[in-house]
Amino acid sequence: MKLVRSARQMARLSLRWQRRGTRIGFVPTMGALHAGHLSLVRAAVAQNDLAVVSIFVNPLQFGPAEDFRRYPRPFRQDLRLARAAGAALVFAPSAAQLYPPGFQTRVQLGALARRWEGQSRPGHFEGVATVVTLLFELVRPANAYVGQKDYQQALLVERLVADLRLPVRIHRLPTVREPDGLALSSRNASLSPSERAQAVVLSSALIHGATRIRAGERNAARLIDGMRRLISEAPASRIDYVAIVEARTLEPVWRLRGRVALLVAAWIGRTRLIDNLLVDVP
Amino acid sequence: MKLVRSARQMARLSLRWQRRGTRIGFVPTMGALHAGHLSLVRAAVAQNDLAVVSIFVNPLQFGPAEDFRRYPRPFRQDLRLARAAGAALVFAPSAAQLYPPGFQTRVQLGALARRWEGQSRPGHFEGVATVVTLLFELVRPANAYVGQKDYQQALLVERLVADLRLPVRIHRLPTVREPDGLALSSRNASLSPSERAQAVVLSSALIHGATRIRAGERNAARLIDGMRRLISEAPASRIDYVAIVEARTLEPVWRLRGRVALLVAAWIGRTRLIDNLLVDVP
Repeated sequence: MKLVRSARQMARLSLRWQRRGTRIGFVPTMGALHAGHLSLVRAAVAQNDLAVVSIFVNPLQFGPAEDFRRYPRPFRQDLRLARAAGAALVFAPSAAQLYPPGFQTRVQLGALARRWEGQSRPGHFEGVATVVTLLFELVRPANAYVGQKDYQQALLVERLVADLRLPVRIHRLPTVREPDGLALSSRNASLSPSERAQAVVLSSALIHGATRIRAGERNAARLIDGMRRLISEAPASRIDYVAIVEARTLEPVWRLRGRVALLVAAWIGRTRLIDNLLVDVP
Repeated sequence: MKLVRSARQMARLSLRWQRRGTRIGFVPTMGALHAGHLSLVRAAVAQNDLAVVSIFVNPLQFGPAEDFRRYPRPFRQDLRLARAAGAALVFAPSAAQLYPPGFQTRVQLGALARRWEGQSRPGHFEGVATVVTLLFELVRPANAYVGQKDYQQALLVERLVADLRLPVRIHRLPTVREPDGLALSSRNASLSPSERAQAVVLSSALIHGATRIRAGERNAARLIDGMRRLISEAPASRIDYVAIVEARTLEPVWRLRGRVALLVAAWIGRTRLIDNLLVDVP
Protein backbone atom coordinates (compact mmCIF):
# COMPACT_ATOMS: atom_id res chain seq x y z
CA MET A 1 0.00 0.00 0.00
CA LYS A 2 1.24 3.43 -1.00
CA LEU A 3 1.24 6.43 1.34
CA VAL A 4 0.96 9.82 -0.39
CA ARG A 5 1.36 13.09 1.50
CA SER A 6 1.67 15.52 -1.39
CA ALA A 7 -1.41 16.89 -3.16
CA ARG A 8 0.55 17.34 -6.36
CA GLN A 9 1.66 13.71 -6.32
CA MET A 10 -1.90 12.57 -5.64
CA ALA A 11 -3.18 14.62 -8.58
CA ARG A 12 -0.45 13.26 -10.86
CA LEU A 13 -1.22 9.65 -9.93
CA SER A 14 -4.97 9.97 -10.36
CA LEU A 15 -4.66 11.70 -13.73
CA ARG A 16 -2.40 8.88 -14.89
CA TRP A 17 -4.91 6.28 -13.68
CA GLN A 18 -7.73 8.16 -15.35
CA ARG A 19 -5.89 8.18 -18.67
CA ARG A 20 -5.37 4.42 -18.40
CA GLY A 21 -9.06 3.88 -17.61
CA THR A 22 -8.33 2.68 -14.06
CA ARG A 23 -11.49 3.06 -11.98
CA ILE A 24 -10.79 4.50 -8.54
CA GLY A 25 -12.98 3.84 -5.51
CA PHE A 26 -12.54 6.53 -2.87
CA VAL A 27 -13.25 6.66 0.86
CA PRO A 28 -12.75 10.11 2.40
CA THR A 29 -12.17 9.89 6.16
CA MET A 30 -10.77 11.86 9.08
CA GLY A 31 -8.90 8.77 10.23
CA ALA A 32 -9.46 6.98 13.55
CA LEU A 33 -10.79 4.22 11.33
CA HIS A 34 -13.39 1.86 12.75
CA ALA A 35 -15.45 -1.00 11.32
CA GLY A 36 -17.82 1.52 9.68
CA HIS A 37 -15.00 3.05 7.64
CA LEU A 38 -13.63 -0.39 6.85
CA SER A 39 -16.95 -1.53 5.40
CA LEU A 40 -16.65 1.45 3.03
CA VAL A 41 -13.06 0.54 2.12
CA ARG A 42 -14.03 -3.06 1.40
CA ALA A 43 -16.86 -1.90 -0.86
CA ALA A 44 -14.43 0.43 -2.68
CA VAL A 45 -11.97 -2.44 -3.12
CA ALA A 46 -14.64 -4.82 -4.38
CA GLN A 47 -16.26 -2.46 -6.88
CA ASN A 48 -13.25 -0.69 -8.44
CA ASP A 49 -9.83 -1.30 -9.93
CA LEU A 50 -8.24 0.20 -6.85
CA ALA A 51 -9.24 1.89 -3.61
CA VAL A 52 -7.93 5.17 -2.22
CA VAL A 53 -8.54 6.17 1.41
CA SER A 54 -7.92 9.75 2.48
CA ILE A 55 -7.06 10.54 6.09
CA PHE A 56 -7.40 14.24 6.81
CA VAL A 57 -8.72 15.93 9.93
CA ASN A 58 -10.11 18.93 8.10
CA PRO A 59 -9.68 22.12 10.14
CA LEU A 60 -12.23 23.95 7.92
CA GLN A 61 -15.12 21.83 9.20
CA PHE A 62 -14.47 22.35 12.91
CA GLY A 63 -15.81 25.40 14.76
CA PRO A 64 -13.45 27.35 17.04
CA ALA A 65 -15.03 25.77 20.16
CA GLU A 66 -15.02 22.25 18.72
CA ASP A 67 -12.83 19.21 19.18
CA PHE A 68 -10.32 19.67 16.32
CA ARG A 69 -7.31 19.30 18.61
CA ARG A 70 -8.87 16.55 20.68
CA TYR A 71 -9.96 14.55 17.60
CA PRO A 72 -8.20 11.14 17.70
CA ARG A 73 -5.31 10.58 15.26
CA PRO A 74 -4.07 6.96 15.59
CA PHE A 75 -2.22 7.24 12.30
CA ARG A 76 -0.07 4.05 12.38
CA GLN A 77 -3.09 1.97 13.32
CA ASP A 78 -5.13 3.62 10.53
CA LEU A 79 -2.50 2.65 7.97
CA ARG A 80 -2.53 -0.97 9.18
CA LEU A 81 -6.33 -1.12 9.04
CA ALA A 82 -6.53 0.49 5.59
CA ARG A 83 -3.95 -1.94 4.24
CA ALA A 84 -5.70 -4.93 5.78
CA ALA A 85 -9.00 -3.83 4.20
CA GLY A 86 -7.31 -3.79 0.78
CA ALA A 87 -6.68 -0.09 0.13
CA ALA A 88 -4.05 0.50 -2.57
CA LEU A 89 -3.23 4.03 -1.45
CA VAL A 90 -3.68 6.22 1.60
CA PHE A 91 -3.70 9.95 0.89
CA ALA A 92 -2.82 11.79 4.10
CA PRO A 93 -2.00 15.42 3.29
CA SER A 94 -1.17 18.14 5.78
CA ALA A 95 -3.51 21.13 6.01
CA ALA A 96 -0.83 23.19 4.23
CA GLN A 97 -0.91 20.73 1.33
CA LEU A 98 -4.67 21.11 0.80
CA TYR A 99 -4.88 24.78 1.78
CA PRO A 100 -1.65 26.47 0.70
CA PRO A 101 -1.09 30.18 1.39
CA GLY A 102 -3.60 32.27 -0.54
CA PHE A 103 -6.25 29.54 -0.58
CA GLN A 104 -9.60 31.31 -0.46
CA THR A 105 -12.21 29.21 -2.26
CA ARG A 106 -15.26 27.88 -0.43
CA VAL A 107 -18.05 25.61 -1.58
CA GLN A 108 -21.40 26.17 0.11
CA LEU A 109 -24.81 24.58 -0.02
CA GLY A 110 -28.16 26.21 0.63
CA ALA A 111 -31.18 24.72 2.38
CA LEU A 112 -29.60 21.29 2.97
CA ALA A 113 -26.70 22.88 4.87
CA ARG A 114 -28.70 25.23 7.07
CA ARG A 115 -30.70 22.90 9.34
CA TRP A 116 -29.69 20.40 12.03
CA GLU A 117 -25.93 19.89 11.96
CA GLY A 118 -25.56 23.10 9.96
CA GLN A 119 -27.42 25.10 12.59
CA SER A 120 -25.59 23.47 15.51
CA ARG A 121 -22.19 23.73 13.83
CA PRO A 122 -21.94 27.00 11.84
CA GLY A 123 -19.47 26.69 8.98
CA HIS A 124 -19.25 22.91 9.36
CA PHE A 125 -20.82 22.00 6.04
CA GLU A 126 -18.94 24.73 4.18
CA GLY A 127 -15.77 23.02 5.39
CA VAL A 128 -17.10 19.61 4.37
CA ALA A 129 -18.26 20.74 0.92
CA THR A 130 -14.98 22.52 0.24
CA VAL A 131 -12.73 19.62 1.22
CA VAL A 132 -14.89 17.03 -0.54
CA THR A 133 -14.81 19.01 -3.81
CA LEU A 134 -11.06 19.40 -3.49
CA LEU A 135 -10.49 15.72 -2.64
CA PHE A 136 -12.68 14.59 -5.53
CA GLU A 137 -10.61 16.75 -7.91
CA LEU A 138 -7.36 15.39 -6.51
CA VAL A 139 -8.36 11.73 -6.40
CA ARG A 140 -10.71 11.70 -9.43
CA PRO A 141 -12.72 8.67 -8.26
CA ALA A 142 -15.38 6.92 -10.32
CA ASN A 143 -17.09 5.87 -7.08
CA ALA A 144 -16.99 7.34 -3.58
CA TYR A 145 -18.26 5.71 -0.40
CA VAL A 146 -19.86 7.48 2.54
CA GLY A 147 -21.58 6.25 5.67
CA GLN A 148 -25.28 6.56 6.43
CA LYS A 149 -24.31 7.58 9.99
CA ASP A 150 -23.56 11.11 8.79
CA TYR A 151 -26.83 11.26 6.95
CA GLN A 152 -27.07 15.00 6.35
CA GLN A 153 -23.45 15.06 5.20
CA ALA A 154 -24.13 12.20 2.79
CA LEU A 155 -27.14 14.02 1.29
CA LEU A 156 -25.09 17.17 1.00
CA VAL A 157 -22.29 15.38 -0.84
CA GLU A 158 -24.83 13.79 -3.17
CA ARG A 159 -26.36 17.21 -3.88
CA LEU A 160 -22.97 18.85 -4.40
CA VAL A 161 -21.92 16.17 -6.88
CA ALA A 162 -25.19 16.51 -8.79
CA ASP A 163 -25.06 20.34 -8.81
CA LEU A 164 -21.44 20.68 -9.89
CA ARG A 165 -21.70 17.65 -12.22
CA LEU A 166 -18.71 15.94 -10.66
CA PRO A 167 -18.22 12.66 -12.52
CA VAL A 168 -18.35 10.46 -9.43
CA ARG A 169 -21.06 8.16 -8.12
CA ILE A 170 -21.78 8.40 -4.39
CA HIS A 171 -22.53 5.17 -2.53
CA ARG A 172 -24.18 5.55 0.85
CA LEU A 173 -23.57 2.47 3.01
CA PRO A 174 -25.41 1.34 6.16
CA THR A 175 -24.34 2.49 9.61
CA VAL A 176 -22.26 -0.12 11.41
CA ARG A 177 -23.27 -0.55 15.05
CA GLU A 178 -21.98 -1.99 18.28
CA PRO A 179 -23.89 -5.06 19.56
CA ASP A 180 -25.99 -2.81 21.85
CA GLY A 181 -26.91 -0.54 18.91
CA LEU A 182 -24.51 2.39 19.37
CA ALA A 183 -23.47 3.70 15.96
CA LEU A 184 -19.73 3.41 15.41
CA SER A 185 -18.02 6.79 15.50
CA SER A 186 -14.44 7.88 15.99
CA ARG A 187 -15.78 10.09 18.78
CA ASN A 188 -16.98 7.08 20.81
CA ALA A 189 -13.36 6.68 21.95
CA SER A 190 -13.76 9.90 23.95
CA LEU A 191 -16.53 8.40 26.11
CA SER A 192 -15.82 7.26 29.67
CA PRO A 193 -17.07 3.75 30.51
CA SER A 194 -20.17 5.21 32.18
CA GLU A 195 -20.81 7.54 29.24
CA ARG A 196 -20.27 4.67 26.83
CA ALA A 197 -22.99 2.70 28.61
CA GLN A 198 -25.34 5.69 28.48
CA ALA A 199 -24.61 6.52 24.82
CA VAL A 200 -26.87 3.68 23.76
CA VAL A 201 -29.87 5.96 24.37
CA LEU A 202 -29.40 7.57 20.95
CA SER A 203 -29.97 4.37 19.01
CA SER A 204 -32.56 3.17 21.53
CA ALA A 205 -34.54 6.35 20.94
CA LEU A 206 -34.43 5.79 17.17
CA ILE A 207 -35.61 2.21 17.52
CA HIS A 208 -38.31 3.31 19.94
CA GLY A 209 -39.51 5.86 17.38
CA ALA A 210 -39.44 3.39 14.49
CA THR A 211 -41.33 0.82 16.55
CA ARG A 212 -44.08 3.29 17.40
CA ILE A 213 -44.33 4.31 13.73
CA ARG A 214 -44.76 0.69 12.76
CA ALA A 215 -47.41 0.40 15.47
CA GLY A 216 -49.37 3.19 13.74
CA GLU A 217 -48.23 6.45 15.32
CA ARG A 218 -48.15 9.21 12.69
CA ASN A 219 -47.85 12.31 14.88
CA ALA A 220 -44.28 13.63 14.78
CA ALA A 221 -44.59 15.75 17.93
CA ARG A 222 -45.67 12.76 20.02
CA LEU A 223 -42.91 10.58 18.57
CA ILE A 224 -40.25 13.24 19.19
CA ASP A 225 -41.53 13.65 22.75
CA GLY A 226 -41.09 9.96 23.44
CA MET A 227 -37.62 9.89 21.88
CA ARG A 228 -36.51 12.94 23.85
CA ARG A 229 -37.78 11.40 27.09
CA LEU A 230 -35.81 8.24 26.42
CA ILE A 231 -32.55 10.12 25.72
CA SER A 232 -33.04 12.30 28.80
CA GLU A 233 -33.04 9.21 31.00
CA ALA A 234 -29.25 9.08 30.59
CA PRO A 235 -27.91 11.44 33.25
CA ALA A 236 -24.85 12.43 31.14
CA SER A 237 -27.01 13.34 28.13
CA ARG A 238 -27.90 16.79 26.83
CA ILE A 239 -30.07 16.81 23.72
CA ASP A 240 -29.10 19.04 20.82
CA TYR A 241 -31.98 18.09 18.52
CA VAL A 242 -34.41 15.25 17.88
CA ALA A 243 -36.24 15.56 14.59
CA ILE A 244 -38.38 13.67 12.13
CA VAL A 245 -37.82 14.93 8.60
CA GLU A 246 -38.63 14.23 5.00
CA ALA A 247 -35.81 11.91 3.98
CA ARG A 248 -34.51 13.87 0.98
CA THR A 249 -35.08 17.53 1.89
CA LEU A 250 -34.53 17.18 5.67
CA GLU A 251 -37.54 19.45 6.20
CA PRO A 252 -39.53 18.61 9.37
CA VAL A 253 -42.73 16.65 8.91
CA TRP A 254 -45.69 16.90 11.28
CA ARG A 255 -47.83 14.04 10.05
CA LEU A 256 -45.68 11.12 8.86
CA ARG A 257 -45.92 9.68 5.36
CA GLY A 258 -43.52 8.37 2.76
CA ARG A 259 -39.87 7.99 3.65
CA VAL A 260 -38.80 9.85 6.76
CA ALA A 261 -35.52 10.16 8.62
CA LEU A 262 -35.35 10.16 12.40
CA LEU A 263 -32.44 12.36 13.48
CA VAL A 264 -30.85 12.64 16.91
CA ALA A 265 -27.91 14.72 18.13
CA ALA A 266 -26.93 14.77 21.77
CA TRP A 267 -24.01 15.40 24.04
CA ILE A 268 -22.96 12.52 26.25
CA GLY A 269 -20.68 14.25 28.69
CA ARG A 270 -18.21 16.29 26.61
CA THR A 271 -18.78 14.22 23.47
CA ARG A 272 -21.33 15.15 20.84
CA LEU A 273 -22.87 12.18 19.03
CA ILE A 274 -25.34 11.89 16.18
CA ASP A 275 -27.39 9.03 14.81
CA ASN A 276 -30.29 8.51 12.42
CA LEU A 277 -32.68 5.95 11.04
CA LEU A 278 -34.63 5.90 7.76
CA VAL A 279 -38.20 4.65 8.07
CA ASP A 280 -40.64 3.94 5.24
CA VAL A 281 -43.99 4.82 6.72
CA PRO A 282 -46.40 2.04 5.72
CA MET B 1 -20.02 22.73 -35.84
CA LYS B 2 -22.18 21.00 -33.26
CA LEU B 3 -24.75 22.84 -31.09
CA VAL B 4 -25.41 21.22 -27.70
CA ARG B 5 -28.20 22.44 -25.43
CA SER B 6 -28.29 19.61 -22.90
CA ALA B 7 -25.88 19.52 -19.95
CA ARG B 8 -26.07 15.75 -19.84
CA GLN B 9 -25.11 15.47 -23.51
CA MET B 10 -22.23 17.92 -23.00
CA ALA B 11 -20.94 15.85 -20.07
CA ARG B 12 -21.24 12.63 -22.05
CA LEU B 13 -19.32 14.06 -25.01
CA SER B 14 -16.51 15.53 -22.91
CA LEU B 15 -16.04 12.32 -20.90
CA ARG B 16 -15.80 10.40 -24.16
CA TRP B 17 -13.22 12.87 -25.53
CA GLN B 18 -11.29 12.69 -22.28
CA ARG B 19 -11.12 8.89 -22.45
CA ARG B 20 -9.78 9.14 -26.00
CA GLY B 21 -7.15 11.69 -24.93
CA THR B 22 -8.72 14.49 -26.98
CA ARG B 23 -7.54 17.83 -25.61
CA ILE B 24 -10.36 20.35 -25.33
CA GLY B 25 -9.81 24.10 -25.47
CA PHE B 26 -12.68 25.99 -23.88
CA VAL B 27 -13.94 29.57 -24.16
CA PRO B 28 -16.74 30.40 -21.69
CA THR B 29 -18.80 33.39 -22.88
CA MET B 30 -22.15 35.10 -22.38
CA GLY B 31 -22.53 35.36 -26.15
CA ALA B 32 -22.75 38.65 -28.06
CA LEU B 33 -19.39 37.59 -29.42
CA HIS B 34 -16.97 40.26 -30.55
CA ALA B 35 -13.37 40.23 -31.80
CA GLY B 36 -12.10 39.81 -28.23
CA HIS B 37 -14.01 36.55 -27.80
CA LEU B 38 -12.97 35.44 -31.25
CA SER B 39 -9.27 35.90 -30.43
CA LEU B 40 -9.87 33.48 -27.53
CA VAL B 41 -11.64 31.00 -29.79
CA ARG B 42 -8.83 31.10 -32.33
CA ALA B 43 -6.26 30.46 -29.59
CA ALA B 44 -8.36 27.52 -28.33
CA VAL B 45 -8.56 26.12 -31.87
CA ALA B 46 -4.83 26.52 -32.46
CA GLN B 47 -3.65 24.97 -29.18
CA ASN B 48 -6.04 22.01 -28.73
CA ASP B 49 -7.56 19.07 -30.56
CA LEU B 50 -10.90 20.85 -30.57
CA ALA B 51 -12.48 24.04 -29.26
CA VAL B 52 -15.71 24.37 -27.29
CA VAL B 53 -17.43 27.74 -26.84
CA SER B 54 -20.16 28.11 -24.23
CA ILE B 55 -22.83 30.77 -24.63
CA PHE B 56 -24.75 31.29 -21.42
CA VAL B 57 -26.04 34.54 -19.95
CA ASN B 58 -25.65 33.42 -16.35
CA PRO B 59 -28.48 34.77 -14.18
CA LEU B 60 -26.48 33.99 -11.00
CA GLN B 61 -23.90 36.66 -11.77
CA PHE B 62 -26.34 39.53 -12.31
CA GLY B 63 -27.69 41.57 -9.42
CA PRO B 64 -31.48 42.24 -9.25
CA ALA B 65 -30.97 45.82 -10.50
CA GLU B 66 -28.56 44.83 -13.26
CA ASP B 67 -28.91 44.35 -17.00
CA PHE B 68 -29.65 40.60 -17.20
CA ARG B 69 -32.78 41.11 -19.35
CA ARG B 70 -31.21 43.86 -21.42
CA TYR B 71 -27.99 41.88 -22.06
CA PRO B 72 -27.66 41.34 -25.84
CA ARG B 73 -28.39 37.84 -27.18
CA PRO B 74 -27.68 37.76 -30.95
CA PHE B 75 -27.64 33.96 -30.93
CA ARG B 76 -27.69 33.19 -34.70
CA GLN B 77 -24.86 35.65 -35.30
CA ASP B 78 -22.89 34.13 -32.39
CA LEU B 79 -23.18 30.68 -33.95
CA ARG B 80 -21.94 31.98 -37.29
CA LEU B 81 -18.98 33.76 -35.66
CA ALA B 82 -18.03 30.77 -33.51
CA ARG B 83 -18.12 28.47 -36.54
CA ALA B 84 -16.06 30.90 -38.62
CA ALA B 85 -13.45 31.07 -35.85
CA GLY B 86 -13.12 27.30 -35.93
CA ALA B 87 -15.13 26.15 -32.87
CA ALA B 88 -16.11 22.48 -33.05
CA LEU B 89 -18.97 22.79 -30.59
CA VAL B 90 -21.13 25.51 -29.06
CA PHE B 91 -22.62 24.63 -25.70
CA ALA B 92 -25.67 26.85 -25.12
CA PRO B 93 -27.69 25.49 -22.21
CA SER B 94 -30.80 27.06 -20.70
CA ALA B 95 -30.65 28.20 -17.07
CA ALA B 96 -32.83 25.21 -16.17
CA GLN B 97 -30.21 22.89 -17.71
CA LEU B 98 -27.38 24.27 -15.56
CA TYR B 99 -29.48 24.97 -12.47
CA PRO B 100 -32.21 22.33 -12.28
CA PRO B 101 -34.78 22.41 -9.46
CA GLY B 102 -33.06 21.83 -6.12
CA PHE B 103 -29.75 23.30 -7.26
CA GLN B 104 -28.20 24.94 -4.21
CA THR B 105 -24.40 24.80 -4.48
CA ARG B 106 -22.34 27.99 -4.60
CA VAL B 107 -18.62 28.52 -5.05
CA GLN B 108 -17.20 31.60 -3.36
CA LEU B 109 -13.85 33.29 -3.13
CA GLY B 110 -12.47 35.37 -0.32
CA ALA B 111 -10.32 38.50 -0.55
CA LEU B 112 -10.07 38.47 -4.37
CA ALA B 113 -13.86 38.58 -4.69
CA ARG B 114 -14.56 41.32 -2.17
CA ARG B 115 -12.99 44.42 -3.69
CA TRP B 116 -13.73 46.45 -6.85
CA GLU B 117 -16.23 44.55 -9.01
CA GLY B 118 -17.16 42.41 -6.00
CA GLN B 119 -18.00 45.46 -3.92
CA SER B 120 -19.88 47.20 -6.74
CA ARG B 121 -21.74 44.05 -7.76
CA PRO B 122 -22.61 41.98 -4.65
CA GLY B 123 -22.98 38.30 -5.50
CA HIS B 124 -21.45 38.79 -8.95
CA PHE B 125 -18.31 36.74 -8.38
CA GLU B 126 -20.19 34.00 -6.52
CA GLY B 127 -22.24 33.61 -9.69
CA VAL B 128 -19.11 33.64 -11.84
CA ALA B 129 -17.21 31.13 -9.67
CA THR B 130 -20.21 28.80 -9.50
CA VAL B 131 -20.90 28.74 -13.23
CA VAL B 132 -17.21 28.45 -14.14
CA THR B 133 -16.73 25.45 -11.83
CA LEU B 134 -19.85 23.85 -13.27
CA LEU B 135 -18.84 24.54 -16.88
CA PHE B 136 -15.33 23.19 -16.31
CA GLU B 137 -16.84 19.97 -14.92
CA LEU B 138 -19.20 19.66 -17.86
CA VAL B 139 -16.70 20.51 -20.61
CA ARG B 140 -13.56 19.04 -18.96
CA PRO B 141 -11.12 21.26 -20.88
CA ALA B 142 -7.34 20.91 -20.78
CA ASN B 143 -7.06 24.66 -21.53
CA ALA B 144 -9.47 27.51 -20.98
CA TYR B 145 -9.19 31.02 -22.43
CA VAL B 146 -10.25 34.23 -20.74
CA GLY B 147 -9.80 37.89 -21.60
CA GLN B 148 -7.58 40.35 -19.79
CA LYS B 149 -10.45 42.88 -20.05
CA ASP B 150 -12.20 41.23 -17.11
CA TYR B 151 -8.99 41.23 -15.11
CA GLN B 152 -10.39 40.59 -11.64
CA GLN B 153 -12.55 37.80 -13.02
CA ALA B 154 -9.53 36.24 -14.72
CA LEU B 155 -7.51 36.30 -11.48
CA LEU B 156 -10.45 34.82 -9.63
CA VAL B 157 -10.80 31.97 -12.12
CA GLU B 158 -7.06 31.29 -11.88
CA ARG B 159 -7.30 31.20 -8.07
CA LEU B 160 -10.37 28.98 -8.10
CA VAL B 161 -8.68 26.50 -10.43
CA ALA B 162 -5.55 26.43 -8.25
CA ASP B 163 -7.52 26.09 -5.00
CA LEU B 164 -9.88 23.33 -6.17
CA ARG B 165 -7.11 21.67 -8.22
CA LEU B 166 -9.19 21.66 -11.36
CA PRO B 167 -7.07 20.01 -14.09
CA VAL B 168 -7.30 22.91 -16.52
CA ARG B 169 -4.79 25.54 -17.51
CA ILE B 170 -6.08 29.12 -17.72
CA HIS B 171 -4.79 31.33 -20.53
CA ARG B 172 -5.33 35.05 -20.11
CA LEU B 173 -5.26 36.82 -23.48
CA PRO B 174 -4.80 40.54 -24.21
CA THR B 175 -7.74 42.91 -24.38
CA VAL B 176 -8.82 43.62 -27.93
CA ARG B 177 -9.56 47.31 -28.55
CA GLU B 178 -11.29 49.58 -31.03
CA PRO B 179 -8.97 51.82 -33.05
CA ASP B 180 -9.59 54.69 -30.59
CA GLY B 181 -8.64 52.45 -27.63
CA LEU B 182 -12.08 51.47 -26.26
CA ALA B 183 -11.91 47.90 -24.94
CA LEU B 184 -14.27 45.59 -26.81
CA SER B 185 -17.24 44.59 -24.68
CA SER B 186 -20.66 43.18 -25.47
CA ARG B 187 -22.05 46.09 -23.46
CA ASN B 188 -20.61 48.64 -25.93
CA ALA B 189 -23.60 47.87 -28.15
CA SER B 190 -25.84 49.58 -25.56
CA LEU B 191 -24.05 52.92 -26.01
CA SER B 192 -25.68 55.74 -28.00
CA PRO B 193 -23.40 57.32 -30.64
CA SER B 194 -22.60 60.21 -28.30
CA GLU B 195 -21.92 57.81 -25.40
CA ARG B 196 -19.78 55.66 -27.66
CA ALA B 197 -17.64 58.70 -28.48
CA GLN B 198 -17.30 59.55 -24.78
CA ALA B 199 -16.55 55.96 -23.69
CA VAL B 200 -13.00 56.35 -24.93
CA VAL B 201 -12.20 58.22 -21.69
CA LEU B 202 -11.75 54.90 -19.84
CA SER B 203 -8.86 53.71 -21.98
CA SER B 204 -7.52 57.27 -22.31
CA ALA B 205 -7.34 57.51 -18.52
CA LEU B 206 -5.42 54.23 -18.34
CA ILE B 207 -2.93 55.35 -20.97
CA HIS B 208 -2.61 58.71 -19.24
CA GLY B 209 -1.79 56.92 -15.98
CA ALA B 210 0.71 54.56 -17.60
CA THR B 211 2.42 57.45 -19.37
CA ARG B 212 2.86 59.38 -16.13
CA ILE B 213 4.21 56.24 -14.42
CA ARG B 214 6.77 55.85 -17.18
CA ALA B 215 7.63 59.53 -16.73
CA GLY B 216 8.48 58.80 -13.09
CA GLU B 217 5.32 59.40 -11.07
CA ARG B 218 5.10 56.90 -8.18
CA ASN B 219 2.36 58.43 -6.07
CA ALA B 220 -0.90 56.50 -6.55
CA ALA B 221 -3.16 59.22 -5.19
CA ARG B 222 -1.86 61.78 -7.69
CA LEU B 223 -2.14 59.31 -10.56
CA ILE B 224 -5.71 58.34 -9.60
CA ASP B 225 -6.62 62.02 -9.36
CA GLY B 226 -5.44 62.66 -12.89
CA MET B 227 -7.25 59.60 -14.23
CA ARG B 228 -10.49 60.55 -12.47
CA ARG B 229 -10.29 64.09 -13.86
CA LEU B 230 -9.87 62.73 -17.37
CA ILE B 231 -12.88 60.41 -17.11
CA SER B 232 -15.02 63.16 -15.58
CA GLU B 233 -14.51 65.28 -18.67
CA ALA B 234 -17.04 63.07 -20.48
CA PRO B 235 -20.44 64.55 -19.54
CA ALA B 236 -22.21 61.15 -19.68
CA SER B 237 -19.67 59.53 -17.32
CA ARG B 238 -20.13 58.62 -13.67
CA ILE B 239 -17.09 57.00 -12.04
CA ASP B 240 -17.57 53.85 -9.98
CA TYR B 241 -13.92 53.36 -9.06
CA VAL B 242 -10.42 54.20 -10.27
CA ALA B 243 -7.70 52.22 -8.53
CA ILE B 244 -4.04 51.27 -8.71
CA VAL B 245 -3.47 47.86 -7.19
CA GLU B 246 -0.86 45.17 -6.72
CA ALA B 247 -1.33 43.05 -9.85
CA ARG B 248 -1.86 39.69 -8.16
CA THR B 249 -3.68 40.50 -4.91
CA LEU B 250 -5.64 43.53 -6.17
CA GLU B 251 -4.79 45.33 -2.93
CA PRO B 252 -4.37 49.11 -3.37
CA VAL B 253 -0.82 50.43 -3.52
CA TRP B 254 0.14 53.93 -2.38
CA ARG B 255 3.69 54.11 -3.64
CA LEU B 256 4.10 52.23 -6.93
CA ARG B 257 6.58 49.43 -7.41
CA GLY B 258 6.68 46.05 -9.14
CA ARG B 259 3.75 45.07 -11.31
CA VAL B 260 0.61 47.09 -10.79
CA ALA B 261 -2.81 47.06 -12.39
CA LEU B 262 -4.69 50.25 -13.20
CA LEU B 263 -8.41 49.59 -12.85
CA VAL B 264 -11.31 51.75 -13.98
CA ALA B 265 -15.07 51.22 -13.77
CA ALA B 266 -17.51 53.90 -14.87
CA TRP B 267 -21.01 54.37 -16.12
CA ILE B 268 -21.39 55.96 -19.51
CA GLY B 269 -25.06 56.84 -19.54
CA ARG B 270 -26.94 53.67 -18.51
CA THR B 271 -24.04 51.36 -19.42
CA ARG B 272 -21.40 50.29 -16.93
CA LEU B 273 -17.95 49.70 -18.48
CA ILE B 274 -14.66 48.45 -17.02
CA ASP B 275 -11.12 48.47 -18.30
CA ASN B 276 -7.61 47.88 -16.96
CA LEU B 277 -3.94 48.04 -17.81
CA LEU B 278 -0.99 46.17 -16.34
CA VAL B 279 2.13 48.28 -15.83
CA ASP B 280 5.57 47.08 -14.79
CA VAL B 281 6.95 49.95 -12.77
CA PRO B 282 10.57 50.46 -13.88
